[in-house]
Amino acid sequence: MLKENNNSTAKKATTVRKRTTTAVKSTPAKKRMDNNDVFLKSPLKIIPLGGLEEIGKNCTVYEYEDHMIIVDCGMSFPDDDMPGVDIVIPDVSYLIKNKDKIKGLFITHGHEDHIGSLPYLLREIDVPVYATKLTLGLILGKLKEHSLDKKVKLIEQKPGDIVRAGRFSVEFIHVNHSIPDAVAFSIATPLGVVLHTGDFKIDSTPINGKMIDLARISELGNKKGFLAMLSDSTNAERPGYTMSERTVGDSFSTLFKQAKNNRIIVATFSSNIHRIQQIIDEAVKCGRKVAVSGRSMINVVTIATQLGYLNIPDGVLIEIEAIRKYTPEQLVIITTGSQGEPMSALHRMAHGDHRNVAIGPNDTIIISASPIPGNEKTVSNVVNGLMKLGAHVVYEKMYDVHVSGHACQEELKLMLALAKPKFFIPVHGEQKQLTKHAEMAMNIGIDKKNILISEIGKIIELTPNSIKQNGAVQSGRVLVDGLGVGDVGSIVLRDRKHLAEDGIIVAVLTIDYATGEIISGPDIVSRGFVYVRESEELMNEARKIIDYAVYSASANGHGDWTAIKSRIRDELSKFLYERTKRSPMILPIIMEV
Amino acid sequence: MLKENNNSTAKKATTVRKRTTTAVKSTPAKKRMDNNDVFLKSPLKIIPLGGLEEIGKNCTVYEYEDHMIIVDCGMSFPDDDMPGVDIVIPDVSYLIKNKDKIKGLFITHGHEDHIGSLPYLLREIDVPVYATKLTLGLILGKLKEHSLDKKVKLIEQKPGDIVRAGRFSVEFIHVNHSIPDAVAFSIATPLGVVLHTGDFKIDSTPINGKMIDLARISELGNKKGFLAMLSDSTNAERPGYTMSERTVGDSFSTLFKQAKNNRIIVATFSSNIHRIQQIIDEAVKCGRKVAVSGRSMINVVTIATQLGYLNIPDGVLIEIEAIRKYTPEQLVIITTGSQGEPMSALHRMAHGDHRNVAIGPNDTIIISASPIPGNEKTVSNVVNGLMKLGAHVVYEKMYDVHVSGHACQEELKLMLALAKPKFFIPVHGEQKQLTKHAEMAMNIGIDKKNILISEIGKIIELTPNSIKQNGAVQSGRVLVDGLGVGDVGSIVLRDRKHLAEDGIIVAVLTIDYATGEIISGPDIVSRGFVYVRESEELMNEARKIIDYAVYSASANGHGDWTAIKSRIRDELSKFLYERTKRSPMILPIIMEV
Repeated sequence: MLKENNNSTAKKATTVRKRTTTAVKSTPAKKRMDNNDVFLKSPLKIIPLGGLEEIGKNCTVYEYEDHMIIVDCGMSFPDDDMPGVDIVIPDVSYLIKNKDKIKGLFITHGHEDHIGSLPYLLREIDVPVYATKLTLGLILGKLKEHSLDKKVKLIEQKPGDIVRAGRFSVEFIHVNHSIPDAVAFSIATPLGVVLHTGDFKIDSTPINGKMIDLARISELGNKKGFLAMLSDSTNAERPGYTMSERTVGDSFSTLFKQAKNNRIIVATFSSNIHRIQQIIDEAVKCGRKVAVSGRSMINVVTIATQLGYLNIPDGVLIEIEAIRKYTPEQLVIITTGSQGEPMSALHRMAHGDHRNVAIGPNDTIIISASPIPGNEKTVSNVVNGLMKLGAHVVYEKMYDVHVSGHACQEELKLMLALAKPKFFIPVHGEQKQLTKHAEMAMNIGIDKKNILISEIGKIIELTPNSIKQNGAVQSGRVLVDGLGVGDVGSIVLRDRKHLAEDGIIVAVLTIDYATGEIISGPDIVSRGFVYVRESEELMNEARKIIDYAVYSASANGHGDWTAIKSRIRDELSKFLYERTKRSPMILPIIMEV
Repeated sequence: MLKENNNSTAKKATTVRKRTTTAVKSTPAKKRMDNNDVFLKSPLKIIPLGGLEEIGKNCTVYEYEDHMIIVDCGMSFPDDDMPGVDIVIPDVSYLIKNKDKIKGLFITHGHEDHIGSLPYLLREIDVPVYATKLTLGLILGKLKEHSLDKKVKLIEQKPGDIVRAGRFSVEFIHVNHSIPDAVAFSIATPLGVVLHTGDFKIDSTPINGKMIDLARISELGNKKGFLAMLSDSTNAERPGYTMSERTVGDSFSTLFKQAKNNRIIVATFSSNIHRIQQIIDEAVKCGRKVAVSGRSMINVVTIATQLGYLNIPDGVLIEIEAIRKYTPEQLVIITTGSQGEPMSALHRMAHGDHRNVAIGPNDTIIISASPIPGNEKTVSNVVNGLMKLGAHVVYEKMYDVHVSGHACQEELKLMLALAKPKFFIPVHGEQKQLTKHAEMAMNIGIDKKNILISEIGKIIELTPNSIKQNGAVQSGRVLVDGLGVGDVGSIVLRDRKHLAEDGIIVAVLTIDYATGEIISGPDIVSRGFVYVRESEELMNEARKIIDYAVYSASANGHGDWTAIKSRIRDELSKFLYERTKRSPMILPIIMEV
């Protein structure tokens, strides 16, 4: 299924399994450092192209002389001020310009904010992708949608593997997260080793797998010391520890018992395979069948089962259409929509328009997720809708039905203390999380001048003895709308927002070029401004305003359409604001015959 | 300032101070009830016109035979799916239709979700408004903006007062809330007494005032028993007790000490006068001057000071323009913008465009509020902006810098237990809060069939022995946009959302009526669709599509503009979707000469 280790090309890096030759090249570099001739060496450059001052579209470039590697290439979702936009990806112009220098793309795990932009980058550059099995499975699905699966080299790695990529040597280290097969990278460079944690938490009782490999991190931290660390700041505002995924299983156990004769519906993130496994385990214990609803949930369950990350006993899984053959107490439905997304399966259930699932008092619905900031209202709307249909709904904070996939303050401090990096760059966070994470690093003893809160596109320059920002590369956000990548820019967005606020008035007239007289119109068409039938009088007056504007703008000779249009716009705008206190977009169109 | 007790009209109700004759008319009614001849009496109708299945625009009608009173008349803020809308008010058609029956408007307190729609109602009906002093002060300010202040009778009451209004008799009962002078109403009717709590919390150590009058509520509950209670469900999901406002003062004390040489900026709700008092008290203690920023903050501080609700020692308050005369450690600025509102003073500070306040590392900023659901992102953006400018920012959950104004679960249960209502109607909440509140009522021993979760517009019919929904009145939401009240309906909103998603394409052509030939155009103008310079080729092709559409639609004779327009719309829509996967609004305009 995955193109594993075939057709090793010149560009492809050498994979050395089992840490025997870790960062061979970096050791002499370290020695020379101690000899204080560091100024003869080039600096190491780290350039985040996403994931700073935001949660999402993580993408970081490591650059040493003519060699580059990229860690992650994610997307983010549009804010409220980007109407019509489907997804947001990082501006990767810098990577395209330097495509010959890129030795490899290393992916920490399979979440959208780490892999979502890959198709857009990989249709421009030809670079091998290194990741663990499940991550590659999810990437492959994505590449297939973009017909790129035949073109891209996907190379599977395991925790413990070391990949040589130009002057870099990247070790895969197992971490805990809300998706299996997540890794951190220990990146050996000619100047020293950098720890790139990726998203992580510390779970000493994870589902199907081991605890994060803190032993290896502290071994590396002790033996040679990390030159720098880039660490996940998502939960830097939250005190304490993130609970183990296992606690959610205990809650399911209790709630499934309470649900007794009810049908049970659990909504969660499709990528949270450990969560899905726990739901299935509990369903099996209760002798219930499991149906899956929602496109991404079906996708992920299929891939995860094929790759051996989900263990579903035979006969447990049924088609969603088959649920009518069973009574409520025989059923568990796992569904998408835990964020209240308008087209999701749970949203459709809450509004009574799901093809196979009609919600009623015999349903116990568990929303096994927290609302992502910005989604609070959509989640509430879904909960309200489900309750109105009579269902019993269990949601965030009512019960331990969700744990985060990210480290809280105590875990972040533990990571800082074990890795003991000389320089620290908090990443994956808005300014407030980055600031908090930096404060923690100071508390743990890292010198304030060795901590850098940076910005997207800024070049972070590291020498063995210094960290600083030095210049910048082209960077930013690129909006994807339908098939268009980047064609929705600030002007289009500004127009969309204007149109949404007050609508549009189109004023059309046909003018005789020879005489300058209006021979047809002015006609006025409005959309999103005011309900037309209630505004006939207003529109009649507006037509008179236009007549007058054309007349007065033509006073000094006709034919200057630009002047006439501008006059129409000004007069009409003033008139409408006075009468309605609204400022619709005004679009004068003059046809000439 | 307030029109107090002057020009008593026929319509105006009689005010009887000091509970001597409480609900005279209701006592014989109660006796007859006991004689089981209740079926001879009319039912009591309670009709919520807002505040159910939503947080906001509270408005409830009490109706007995030909007599009506209204409790509160609030507004709410538009959701994301109402672009361009300024505020949302309840549909009060039912009140306007029955204006001769309305004996009085009773207001619990001065928050926008309880008084915000008053100007829109009071320009249609002539009814006296009963409220406490501060509430009337805030209402008066609102009426002045709408030039209604001379027309409306505002009648000041105090807790303990009883107002006779037709067949109703309304007692004012002091409660704690996040604004002073808040009251509950004990409404005596011919069928029994109804407790309408309004917004409340139980604060045994409030600022400037007494604890909620639980004694009077339990006295009424014990002596006669409440027929029904309508109670605030806002915090029904939160376990435990709401902390006392005084705890916030303790936090301020600690934080002001820590801020040492920094300027201190505190953002909070302008209506939270107790909070403002505590900030001022702490500033005075530290020998700091106080400046106020933000229109609504200045308004409320002025009104509250005039009416004696704020106590500011002479010389403490300075103009915002005067802050440059002082060093950071001499200053406290109280500002609006605790919700991150885009035009607010704090938002402008965070983006470096406040006229008088430039933020830097010498600023300690305290956001003394929680984000209202839906505002999480705007608040985060402001925090991020302030931190980026180097300020030290203290916000929700980092410290006890805010307490809610609403009762949590233990307080709600206490209220239920003291009032012991026969029937219970949870109000002021979305479905999830109403459901939770209803569950608590059941736990406390109220019979499930005596609890009604209702909907806006539904008539709740009460007899001494039953509660049920019986019919409905016209109700819903009315959108206010600029000067337009109600002219933005579902079609306009749908168009605005469509325009925001994909923009608009206007296709114009002038046709010779006689021959059916195109004599000018087709011209295409687009807005919010795609950046024009990048789409010239697309637009050229689109023009050909239009030519073809006109040609083929005219094949069976020309002049049917509707058919031609429809054909243009269909063909262009199909073409653009294929090429861009977007569906802009298409507006064909045909001019004939």
